[in-house]
Amino acid sequence: MAKKVAVIMGSDSDWGTVKKGVAVLREYGVETEVHVMSAHRTPAQAAEFASSARENGFGVIIAAAGMAAHLGGVLAAHTTLPVIGIPIKSAAFDGMDALLATVMMPKGVPVATVAVDGAANAAYLAVQILALSDGALADKLALAKKQMEQEVLEKDAKLQAEING
Amino acid sequence: MAKKVAVIMGSDSDWGTVKKGVAVLREYGVETEVHVMSAHRTPAQAAEFASSARENGFGVIIAAAGMAAHLGGVLAAHTTLPVIGIPIKSAAFDGMDALLATVMMPKGVPVATVAVDGAANAAYLAVQILALSDGALADKLALAKKQMEQEVLEKDAKLQAEING
Amino acid sequence: MAKKVAVIMGSDSDWGTVKKGVAVLREYGVETEVHVMSAHRTPAQAAEFASSARENGFGVIIAAAGMAAHLGGVLAAHTTLPVIGIPIKSAAFDGMDALLATVMMPKGVPVATVAVDGAANAAYLAVQILALSDGALADKLALAKKQMEQEVLEKDAKLQAEING
Amino acid sequence: MAKKVAVIMGSDSDWGTVKKGVAVLREYGVETEVHVMSAHRTPAQAAEFASSARENGFGVIIAAAGMAAHLGGVLAAHTTLPVIGIPIKSAAFDGMDALLATVMMPKGVPVATVAVDGAANAAYLAVQILALSDGALADKLALAKKQMEQEVLEKDAKLQAEING
Amino acid sequence: MAKKVAVIMGSDSDWGTVKKGVAVLREYGVETEVHVMSAHRTPAQAAEFASSARENGFGVIIAAAGMAAHLGGVLAAHTTLPVIGIPIKSAAFDGMDALLATVMMPKGVPVATVAVDGAANAAYLAVQILALSDGALADKLALAKKQMEQEVLEKDAKLQAEING
Amino acid sequence: MAKKVAVIMGSDSDWGTVKKGVAVLREYGVETEVHVMSAHRTPAQAAEFASSARENGFGVIIAAAGMAAHLGGVLAAHTTLPVIGIPIKSAAFDGMDALLATVMMPKGVPVATVAVDGAANAAYLAVQILALSDGALADKLALAKKQMEQEVLEKDAKLQAEING
Amino acid sequence: MAKKVAVIMGSDSDWGTVKKGVAVLREYGVETEVHVMSAHRTPAQAAEFASSARENGFGVIIAAAGMAAHLGGVLAAHTTLPVIGIPIKSAAFDGMDALLATVMMPKGVPVATVAVDGAANAAYLAVQILALSDGALADKLALAKKQMEQEVLEKDAKLQAEING
Amino acid sequence: MAKKVAVIMGSDSDWGTVKKGVAVLREYGVETEVHVMSAHRTPAQAAEFASSARENGFGVIIAAAGMAAHLGGVLAAHTTLPVIGIPIKSAAFDGMDALLATVMMPKGVPVATVAVDGAANAAYLAVQILALSDGALADKLALAKKQMEQEVLEKDAKLQAEING
Repeated sequence: MAKKVAVIMGSDSDWGTVKKGVAVLREYGVETEVHVMSAHRTPAQAAEFASSARENGFGVIIAAAGMAAHLGGVLAAHTTLPVIGIPIKSAAFDGMDALLATVMMPKGVPVATVAVDGAANAAYLAVQILALSDGALADKLALAKKQMEQEVLEKDAKLQAEING
Repeated sequence: MAKKVAVIMGSDSDWGTVKKGVAVLREYGVETEVHVMSAHRTPAQAAEFASSARENGFGVIIAAAGMAAHLGGVLAAHTTLPVIGIPIKSAAFDGMDALLATVMMPKGVPVATVAVDGAANAAYLAVQILALSDGALADKLALAKKQMEQEVLEKDAKLQAEING
Repeated sequence: MAKKVAVIMGSDSDWGTVKKGVAVLREYGVETEVHVMSAHRTPAQAAEFASSARENGFGVIIAAAGMAAHLGGVLAAHTTLPVIGIPIKSAAFDGMDALLATVMMPKGVPVATVAVDGAANAAYLAVQILALSDGALADKLALAKKQMEQEVLEKDAKLQAEING
Repeated sequence: MAKKVAVIMGSDSDWGTVKKGVAVLREYGVETEVHVMSAHRTPAQAAEFASSARENGFGVIIAAAGMAAHLGGVLAAHTTLPVIGIPIKSAAFDGMDALLATVMMPKGVPVATVAVDGAANAAYLAVQILALSDGALADKLALAKKQMEQEVLEKDAKLQAEING
Repeated sequence: MAKKVAVIMGSDSDWGTVKKGVAVLREYGVETEVHVMSAHRTPAQAAEFASSARENGFGVIIAAAGMAAHLGGVLAAHTTLPVIGIPIKSAAFDGMDALLATVMMPKGVPVATVAVDGAANAAYLAVQILALSDGALADKLALAKKQMEQEVLEKDAKLQAEING
Repeated sequence: MAKKVAVIMGSDSDWGTVKKGVAVLREYGVETEVHVMSAHRTPAQAAEFASSARENGFGVIIAAAGMAAHLGGVLAAHTTLPVIGIPIKSAAFDGMDALLATVMMPKGVPVATVAVDGAANAAYLAVQILALSDGALADKLALAKKQMEQEVLEKDAKLQAEING
Repeated sequence: MAKKVAVIMGSDSDWGTVKKGVAVLREYGVETEVHVMSAHRTPAQAAEFASSARENGFGVIIAAAGMAAHLGGVLAAHTTLPVIGIPIKSAAFDGMDALLATVMMPKGVPVATVAVDGAANAAYLAVQILALSDGALADKLALAKKQMEQEVLEKDAKLQAEING
Repeated sequence: MAKKVAVIMGSDSDWGTVKKGVAVLREYGVETEVHVMSAHRTPAQAAEFASSARENGFGVIIAAAGMAAHLGGVLAAHTTLPVIGIPIKSAAFDGMDALLATVMMPKGVPVATVAVDGAANAAYLAVQILALSDGALADKLALAKKQMEQEVLEKDAKLQAEING
């Protein structure tokens, strides 16, 4: 059975960013569960969720958090599933605080970090991971890569007409 | 009965820095328990320790960690005791990663952060906190402040002799 | 008699941020005195206030300042009470100047630093400190922690209905 | 058939760091191919390698590079396999240049970034990914997590005897 | 025959910045071709373009990209023409990510980097380069330098009238 | 009567850096008094010294301090003499903490900041200030500027012989 | 005869910031000359101005510039008068580029740097310098310091009425 | 006649870094003149050199400087030749001060900036520029690019034998 992706955000205020990743996951037909869980406010729920994620059918956990972004690390502490971290940009430091707090994990407990506010890329990465054992997903990714290329070529063609024209 | 201070470090490699704080706590006669506990490798023990710290007679928890320093935040998630964080300088970023991961805590779960590698100051802060209900400790702090002043005055006097001569 | 908390800000322009901390202190029923005092413009008043704070019934001093934020350090120089520093974000550097000027204190004179603009957390930390010798405050903090957890659970439940539904 | 991991480094001078990841991969019995390939000096080989990696039996590509670390992004441009980036610390900026050049990828082309010089974690992440369709690997990871916990508990016990004792 | 300048941007969203450079090139009568090409989405086209740029009559390639700005480096990997990089400021880090990803190139593959969003200066630099073998261009540059000086002198004169009165 | 310069350092460990500035002051025959005084450990002495510095014959105060470098600001709070700040590089952050804590002073209380560890330049600046009303000092400065130029010309000549030769 | 202050800005777009400093200088009755001069666009005028500034009756030069802020250094290269640098915040890096380009001057050529956009403080510093040989200015500064203190006391009193009630 | 390259360094202490660039220039048979000239200590010589560089047969000026690295900008102010800047890493800030002071030039006066301490790349860039009108140089560059590729392929082959073997 196809594995699910969990998308956990530290605060519901992150939803504006996170939903772009959820949209990608749904576009790929990946079963996705979204939760608000906090490393600091609901640590027991976060620990419990991560601990049982594999047996509950999840293949990847995506964690989005800002400031002292501990969520990815806290989830990774409780699972050996791949955990993807999205550093969320907040009021200060342009997301550098969240980036460092997400990426600089100690040996043995990695968090696969994407760009600040990079929710779509977290989703693409999750799909790439699941696609390793799902040929249909792999085909969709290959097709999307071609479309992405095509879109740039079209933008360039449009530019040629308008600017160089 | 006097409250104890817990000093938790994320890795035994932090001991070289952390022991300077333990020395200060002992100098003030504060009962101190030192532990290695990791937010990422022993999360259950860390959660359990923090959850029961108040009833086990602790008044303050000091947490020392480097890189994506989640330890202070993880302990603070499980207690309402004051948690003091020491950001440990590690191989990259001069401790900026640990500083931001320790200090930028979300609303409701503060970590009282001291300077990078500031183990002695974490201890002084813990003593200041305990001294609020312990007149003898308060007296010792007042005395130490005077001695600190005296030491600077003596260094200045020595300098006068040597340099301004 | 219950100890008071002093909230000192370096400029009245900090009030928009600082008042969030004062609100928390009042919510906990902590007697609070708010002052505008400047490390650089009214140094004598700041020194005098800190020097006599303990005998005047204060248990904790909270200092909020931006830019070259010396206020926390200057107050800490004149007292052995715990001093909590709130680095205020100003026009340049997203508050990094104030953070470093507040947290990087030398040995013997700690300032317990919270997040940039983290006035609420400064207040929670002050309450945590006072709660060590005030069982009623400790109970309120424990209750608040449960409520905070409950709020996240409710947000998650709401999200389940809306998104995963 | 089990999927292989490719470990590509931008310069043979990165081997001192990268080999720690290769050791982890071998410890887990993952078939690993190590290459020196440069985004800037052998771009055609890098493109060719990435383009054919999936059909050549690779499941994950790990890319290690310093300075303007383009290697991860360049490989990711040519494959839809998950690409893991290790930012290598070099002479200037403590690896911040490599971290930003690796993690800040645009939409559609993620690079799963680990800590600066985090070769072992890149390997653990690769194993976590492969373990999604390899129960034996998953069991090994679960065991390793327990051993990691056990090691910390032993260090703590040792510390209790020595310090608190 | 006079050499052309290629202006390549990683995304059509960079056009608002890049067009200021194109305007400068046209002002100097330099034949200019503008393209959207992505190091990550159309890597083959980028490689092909750079590889054949010299024989296609280009003398300089200008590359504008934001975030993990690999475009300059990827083009430079495929040509020995001078490549000028414009780091584009994007949502996070004020363009520091793009600056470091553009300027910190390894030995043998330089990218001549100008200021963040410095499209006009990229164009001036390209003209300076072409002017080495084009006396008319050199004369125009010399004239422009004089005009630039004259403009400042006039602004100063205007200020004298208004302010120093 | 010629005005004196006070050189105040926050810790005697700064002497290795500070003495380079004292040497410059003596070279110019400026009467100099060196003190160890701490914004945090001897705040009363620092305040007293600055308050009476003008009437005690000082014309400039130089303050050297590291980390949360408050010394310059604290002295400036108590005098209207020009205060020059030398940010001292310490264990973390390459002196950025001291630089920001020294230079980012609020309106009305400037600290004239020189480069990190720039003790010699602090001294030159002090001499430049005193030279405004001391023609002999001004002449010495003009001579030194010529010698500085001469030294570079000689180094260049030597290089011509060795390298271009 | 009283010495004049020159206020030089690199671009007339800096006037919005710089005029706050000019206002302070006029408030103190200091004769002030304002100029637009550029280190890069009118280098000869800048060099000429600085070279003859002392004989033209100037006592202090204030230089305001943003980005790669060379103006202060270029003026200081041509005079032994004290040069005060105001780093101007521009589009990127919050003025950190201008701050470092202004303050990190090599030995022998100091630029007295004030806070980013700190035009008023540059002016106060200039007045402090001129006041060393002008008792009336010194008296005005002392009075202003008292007024500054008074203003804070009044703000505090107002706050007491409103907040502490 | 072939154009010369001028290599100007701000201090003879930069020679250890700069000579790697000079070696590259000589390897390519480019006539090279090396000078010590300082933007701050010999500004007149620097201005004179740059002003007459074109008529003296130079095609490119390379400027190496650390700290507040004004040299590139000062030279560019006096010429319309392409100026290449090498930011030199010095005691503080890992060369970030020199990088920003070199690259963030205002409109109209570009400095083509290479990596911190990137002397070899400054030289390659100069050769690429000169090669636009010198077919023999262009051929040498093309050959060197192939050799660079070959070296990586050989390192990879060696690694295959040793590691994957």
